[in-house]
Amino acid sequence: MSKRFKLSFIGAGNVSWHLSSAFENAGFKVQEVFSRNLKNAKEVTSLLYDATPVDKLDFSKSESEVFIICVSDDKVQEVSNELIVPDGSIVVHTSGSGELNLLNKHPLIGVLYPLQTFTKGNKILYSEIPFFFEASDEVVTEKLQFLATALSGKVYQVDSSARMALHIAAVFASNFSNHLYAISNEIIERTGIPFDVLKPLVEETAYKAFNKGPLAAQTGPAIRKDVKILEKHINFLTSDPEMKSLYKILSHDILKKAE
Amino acid sequence: MSKRFKLSFIGAGNVSWHLSSAFENAGFKVQEVFSRNLKNAKEVTSLLYDATPVDKLDFSKSESEVFIICVSDDKVQEVSNELIVPDGSIVVHTSGSGELNLLNKHPLIGVLYPLQTFTKGNKILYSEIPFFFEASDEVVTEKLQFLATALSGKVYQVDSSARMALHIAAVFASNFSNHLYAISNEIIERTGIPFDVLKPLVEETAYKAFNKGPLAAQTGPAIRKDVKILEKHINFLTSDPEMKSLYKILSHDILKKAE
Repeated sequence: MSKRFKLSFIGAGNVSWHLSSAFENAGFKVQEVFSRNLKNAKEVTSLLYDATPVDKLDFSKSESEVFIICVSDDKVQEVSNELIVPDGSIVVHTSGSGELNLLNKHPLIGVLYPLQTFTKGNKILYSEIPFFFEASDEVVTEKLQFLATALSGKVYQVDSSARMALHIAAVFASNFSNHLYAISNEIIERTGIPFDVLKPLVEETAYKAFNKGPLAAQTGPAIRKDVKILEKHINFLTSDPEMKSLYKILSHDILKKAE
Repeated sequence: MSKRFKLSFIGAGNVSWHLSSAFENAGFKVQEVFSRNLKNAKEVTSLLYDATPVDKLDFSKSESEVFIICVSDDKVQEVSNELIVPDGSIVVHTSGSGELNLLNKHPLIGVLYPLQTFTKGNKILYSEIPFFFEASDEVVTEKLQFLATALSGKVYQVDSSARMALHIAAVFASNFSNHLYAISNEIIERTGIPFDVLKPLVEETAYKAFNKGPLAAQTGPAIRKDVKILEKHINFLTSDPEMKSLYKILSHDILKKAE
């Protein structure tokens, strides 16, 4: 099964933008890219070898063996229900929290979830990105395993529940951390100091979390139970109720771990 | 004023461990390292050229011009009050949230706050670490400016209030983010997948926050207002009240920014 088969991408957002090019670089051929807005589809196909931008979900004439749905999680089922694919082809979505059965209209289905935050234009090292897949049967398993390992050295087969756990963990580690960076940015901006003074700290924090484990790596006033400093900081944030309340809750949670 | 003067370190924890070596590498001479526990002082001096470990705070015979207090924030004033230094020498603390006047027992005082999380044994690139200093007068200003710029290209003079803001920003970006990593770790561990699958995501998140700014870089279900996914995740966390409540609060705060 060393054949590099043909793929189509349904959706033309960040994930499609990234994965379509990545799979072509890995030797697969992208046949079509779908978007309701043809202009968006063209934006993605312009980066590809010879893919056709399309705005209809009827792929009955397509040569693709795998159709990869990269639309926002709440649109997966709707798109899948409209999608027409050739007999024997596989339909896959890429959502972290969408169940496999969102695709139940089709017989051969799977999920291929890359654990990364994608932004058009940002280069990404695919070999390090973990891919989590789920498959309706052995044929799909073999196909998705082959597809994922062509890009990444970290491929795991997990069920929908484990995938949701991974997605939630990613929300904490990425979306929520980023929200804390935004608060941090707001506090620093008021002093006139540029936000990027925090870069070495943020990088070292991430490094330590993966090097020693985040529990052992915890530092700061809360884990030291330095209640005086905590009070000072909470006072300082009096005019920012959202920041103040978050500071209290997070410090409280860390304090509990210190006990 | 190119003279590389002599220094003493009061305290033998992570900050002292790091800064004493860094200043010696930058050409300064460390005379003494103090700890109430001589063994801890020796652990630091063993890394230095010819520093003496001491367990008394009487430095009246010392040749040092600057005494750098690196003890936990709540001990700074107590240690400063006990500390005896030669006439004309400068006493400095390194705390983010400690006022300059904690050192008021002494006439020439300052603060030298390095914005980084220090762990013994971890190598750090000092040229990138921002140093924030505060000084009681022009003589101390000149001395601390000289000291800080010997290590770092990012040196800022700020008052106690701005320094506290920077410390609070650092708590959000480092200590609190790390707590989120710990939660993330806990969720992932239950699936049997290793925590380090999150490393590329965490690194890319940090990269994007400093590259585009954290507000513009926000991704995930909350900023997309994908209420269905948020509900799924909250349900998934039902048996973990702390995680569930944090998930709700942080998503709510991000949702507000999406409006």
